[in-house]
Amino acid sequence: MVKVAILGFGVVGSGVAEVIRRNEEVITARAGVGMEVKYILDLRDFPDSPYADKMVKDFSVIEQDPEVDVVVETIGGAKAALEFTRRALKAGKSVVSSNKELVAQHGYELLCLARENKVSYRFEASVGGGIPVLHPLSQCLAANRLTEVRGILNGTTNYILTHMIGTGLSFEEALKEAQERGYAEHDPSADIEGIDACRKTCILAAIAFGRHVYPSQVSTEGITKVTLADVSYADAAGMRVKLLGRAIRQDDGKVMAYVAPHLVRHSDPLADVDDVFNAIIVRGNAIGDVMFYGRGAGKLPTASAVVADVIDAFQHQRTRRFLSWDEGSEAYVVGPEGLCSQWFLRLRGTVRDLEGLGPVTILGRPGAPADEIGVITEAMTHDELSKRLNGTAPLSAMRVLDESADLA
Amino acid sequence: MVKVAILGFGVVGSGVAEVIRRNEEVITARAGVGMEVKYILDLRDFPDSPYADKMVKDFSVIEQDPEVDVVVETIGGAKAALEFTRRALKAGKSVVSSNKELVAQHGYELLCLARENKVSYRFEASVGGGIPVLHPLSQCLAANRLTEVRGILNGTTNYILTHMIGTGLSFEEALKEAQERGYAEHDPSADIEGIDACRKTCILAAIAFGRHVYPSQVSTEGITKVTLADVSYADAAGMRVKLLGRAIRQDDGKVMAYVAPHLVRHSDPLADVDDVFNAIIVRGNAIGDVMFYGRGAGKLPTASAVVADVIDAFQHQRTRRFLSWDEGSEAYVVGPEGLCSQWFLRLRGTVRDLEGLGPVTILGRPGAPADEIGVITEAMTHDELSKRLNGTAPLSAMRVLDESADLA
Repeated sequence: MVKVAILGFGVVGSGVAEVIRRNEEVITARAGVGMEVKYILDLRDFPDSPYADKMVKDFSVIEQDPEVDVVVETIGGAKAALEFTRRALKAGKSVVSSNKELVAQHGYELLCLARENKVSYRFEASVGGGIPVLHPLSQCLAANRLTEVRGILNGTTNYILTHMIGTGLSFEEALKEAQERGYAEHDPSADIEGIDACRKTCILAAIAFGRHVYPSQVSTEGITKVTLADVSYADAAGMRVKLLGRAIRQDDGKVMAYVAPHLVRHSDPLADVDDVFNAIIVRGNAIGDVMFYGRGAGKLPTASAVVADVIDAFQHQRTRRFLSWDEGSEAYVVGPEGLCSQWFLRLRGTVRDLEGLGPVTILGRPGAPADEIGVITEAMTHDELSKRLNGTAPLSAMRVLDESADLA
Repeated sequence: MVKVAILGFGVVGSGVAEVIRRNEEVITARAGVGMEVKYILDLRDFPDSPYADKMVKDFSVIEQDPEVDVVVETIGGAKAALEFTRRALKAGKSVVSSNKELVAQHGYELLCLARENKVSYRFEASVGGGIPVLHPLSQCLAANRLTEVRGILNGTTNYILTHMIGTGLSFEEALKEAQERGYAEHDPSADIEGIDACRKTCILAAIAFGRHVYPSQVSTEGITKVTLADVSYADAAGMRVKLLGRAIRQDDGKVMAYVAPHLVRHSDPLADVDDVFNAIIVRGNAIGDVMFYGRGAGKLPTASAVVADVIDAFQHQRTRRFLSWDEGSEAYVVGPEGLCSQWFLRLRGTVRDLEGLGPVTILGRPGAPADEIGVITEAMTHDELSKRLNGTAPLSAMRVLDESADLA
């Protein structure tokens, strides 16, 4: 019997308990043994919960119980979660987490700690919710030299952008709708400012390229400045606006990582990923491009990824098979400054004001004011763009995603 | 050092040798040890190959060499491949295969043999080429009760259908083009008759639902009867014609499995999977729908999946973690007779001849003869359709894929 302790009885934590109960039969078949929730740690009281007799408030009860095989950390944040994860690993318990903030900031340390204590630290649910992507990245693609990971990593912002495009809502209106439907938090800043996508980009980059990338190293731009006008121009050009996280392995061994809204061509498979769905494209030198697609969040999808990790951690208890990556360094990560892209620009002015920009494609949109113009430039770096703009501040500027060499 | 013997020096076999050589560094990093091709078995001579010194013609050299850890079987078919796989497993060597015919027909026996001999039998490359799908199915989705697997499983037929739609070619013309480009074999029957998709459906069903499904049990219809007229009607209705393999777990514990061309709505993620790409959708009770998408064939993508399996087989040498499923049985698999679908029909006649069909949507296509009519019916079983057709033989009849509960 695998005995599990769940830290935090919120959406994901209660989902984990529910999946373990509902899918008892299939889990037992796959794990080879049954699985039981022995403790649930939460500071709140849940007197009416069916798990009331399992609730504890003191982590040392879990830490000191040798029967607990796996600790599931769904607290979030990097304070109590960090402390309890460290203590659990040191106590010889494997830890499974859905906490992207913690992994993105402290993944290297915690993986080392797991290895020292001969246990597992796993976090499939931290990226892409229920979509299996970290396992395939680290295992199934082991024979490839990976060159890029890119994706739609945040369901909330994708929902907002999809509804701006589909129903002509402003950013604020679409955000309000997402909040009413429970897809956006009361304080949505981690989503709309790109912070969540940034953390996931760090985790993907670390697994794909083998070295820690810290959120502070990743140039991050959210979607708060994306206007309905931008979305309309994109639509008229047969493109969609998508918030993408990208990590590209450069020839010099460094990694270019950034998060920003992009215009994506309709022929690109990322263009059709709508609503709260996520999609991650992995590029390898043998495999070409592979895409993983599904619900990027949600109670049960995320919980099912956690439970799969629990099974995996338990099955690997007696083997020496550790996920790991190297320590990060300041010089290892670079921003997208050197990246040549076509640019979408929305400018105040007329065609006459475009002279210094070089060849452009002029876009139209219904109801555009006479003194507004939308264009797509040729490919250039951001520096070159600034030079050609020669002091003019565009109303909007977004990269156009370069055509996928393979999938598009 | 992992010592590998490759059986068969064709497209995939030579690709495996190439991936091992080209990606030596990353493979060593992921596997924890280096990997070396010790033997290549082929009846042909390759005097100019860089692997000339590794070529052998007698399998017993490999069988009797205790240094060989993993045998890679890329011979194809179910004769020599079956014999050598049995002998390798009995000799205590793990076997990795890309041979869907062998796995679909003899997977149960070979997995049992692997377990008895405490070695691995793995075949990620047999479905979806380089796309990781079998591993995620068996591991990452271990916490889900899976209910359906559906997908575009054959790149050749998808290429043909895409080019019929995109460039207005007839089936024969599109097949010829696919052959010229090397996407279809000289004898394309295994692809165009749906046999290849059928084998892959069997393997997916076995992993998803835990019991062997034999190709002979799966109702299989290829694309040879799909006409340009059908494709045009579908196009006019905003749909695409796709050859799908499906396996659905029924409430009575049986599995419904079949392969057939379908009309797929544009809103379904499978509709946009074009050319030689494959996509597999897995549905679980916790995760909802997840899609895996990429190149379903090709030398290097397939080889990279093989090499990843070699790493995995080697790493699991000393653990008791076996992929397995139960023996098949005659009563376990049922055809799609009980499945209610809307139907696309192309009929000789006029609107007056539709009376007995019940409510239909009438479709148009450019250049349709006056005595031809295309319709989409309401949802019904095949029996009910036959009854309503009352002896009229439609020129074409294809199921319309029901809307995905989740991804669409």
